[in-house]
Amino acid sequence: MKIYDFKGFPNPARVRIALAEKGLTNRVEFIPVNVPAGEHRLPAFVAKNPSAAVPVLELDDGTMISECTAITEYLDHLDGAPTLTGSSPKQRAVIHMMQRRAEAELMDAVATYFHHATPGLGAKIELYQNREWGEKSRDRALAGMAYFDRLLGSQPYLAGDEFSMADITAFVGLGFADFAKIAIPADLANLHAWRARIAVRPGVTAS
Amino acid sequence: MKIYDFKGFPNPARVRIALAEKGLTNRVEFIPVNVPAGEHRLPAFVAKNPSAAVPVLELDDGTMISECTAITEYLDHLDGAPTLTGSSPKQRAVIHMMQRRAEAELMDAVATYFHHATPGLGAKIELYQNREWGEKSRDRALAGMAYFDRLLGSQPYLAGDEFSMADITAFVGLGFADFAKIAIPADLANLHAWRARIAVRPGVTAS
Repeated sequence: MKIYDFKGFPNPARVRIALAEKGLTNRVEFIPVNVPAGEHRLPAFVAKNPSAAVPVLELDDGTMISECTAITEYLDHLDGAPTLTGSSPKQRAVIHMMQRRAEAELMDAVATYFHHATPGLGAKIELYQNREWGEKSRDRALAGMAYFDRLLGSQPYLAGDEFSMADITAFVGLGFADFAKIAIPADLANLHAWRARIAVRPGVTAS
Repeated sequence: MKIYDFKGFPNPARVRIALAEKGLTNRVEFIPVNVPAGEHRLPAFVAKNPSAAVPVLELDDGTMISECTAITEYLDHLDGAPTLTGSSPKQRAVIHMMQRRAEAELMDAVATYFHHATPGLGAKIELYQNREWGEKSRDRALAGMAYFDRLLGSQPYLAGDEFSMADITAFVGLGFADFAKIAIPADLANLHAWRARIAVRPGVTAS
């Protein structure tokens, strides 16, 4: 397997954590894509992912898989023992619900703020910005943090009792918030405690 | 099972098609939520889905599942024989990739145009609009249509040889585009032919 990505960026980090959690990191060849220089928008990369985003997983038969949820589904089912995406219908449903929520209310909200209401990756990459929409997205990210904090007051992980891909997404989303200088409110004690627990997982420290 | 929704709206339609495809429609009690009147934003409904959106699936144990992908995962795995979300790791990955793409590049793009660049559901519901972002989203939806048309030039369904939840999402997205008066370019022959084939599926006509 090959992964096209840019180390240190948020969505690549999600897949690198999933790989480490599944013990698959050594089975992957990482191929860097210079996103800050715009390499992800060149025809050679758009042929791999028409959405022009990293990461992309290339299977040994040449199939290109983009979108973190899709890549995680693949990696998690390779050994027939899914741990990140759930096994029962109900587990699968709750994890996919929380994954979407972690994306829409945190990860994507932070990304929209970063790309639209800050200099983002610079004028050569940020060809269109909508500052007002970016500011609205920051509000959405803050509301998302407050929601996850309430949720974590009564359960250890986003989808319940077990760690899942939704925790990876929200954890990386908070890191992106730090980078984008969206302050995570100090009074969200459940969220901060959860984050500290996730940060020391072997799959996270190894990624 | 109960489904809280508003018949005829796009995301409810996605789940109603999934139910019909799986032969589960008769096992569900539908409970209407008056979205045009703002019922989805009242505390009683927000307690079911903090994202304040329909549809929501309530399981018999009281668990609330929102987000169409999550609901579809549940319904598709109930009988242990998934047909909408894939069975092999590669099928699962491709379907989830195309599902995300159908959402981001078509369904959500049309929705953002509708809610931001048209009167949408009216002034009482559309409390914040960003017309420029809405117009950009229409461009994105049109680009999505062109992408899916190219894709369907070499395969019968969005995820390859088999019908999947990604086809449901894109099919409903085109219906939403009609409603929002985004004209689907007549020269996208593959897309129109695919749409006509999906429209006559028993699961679609019955939904």
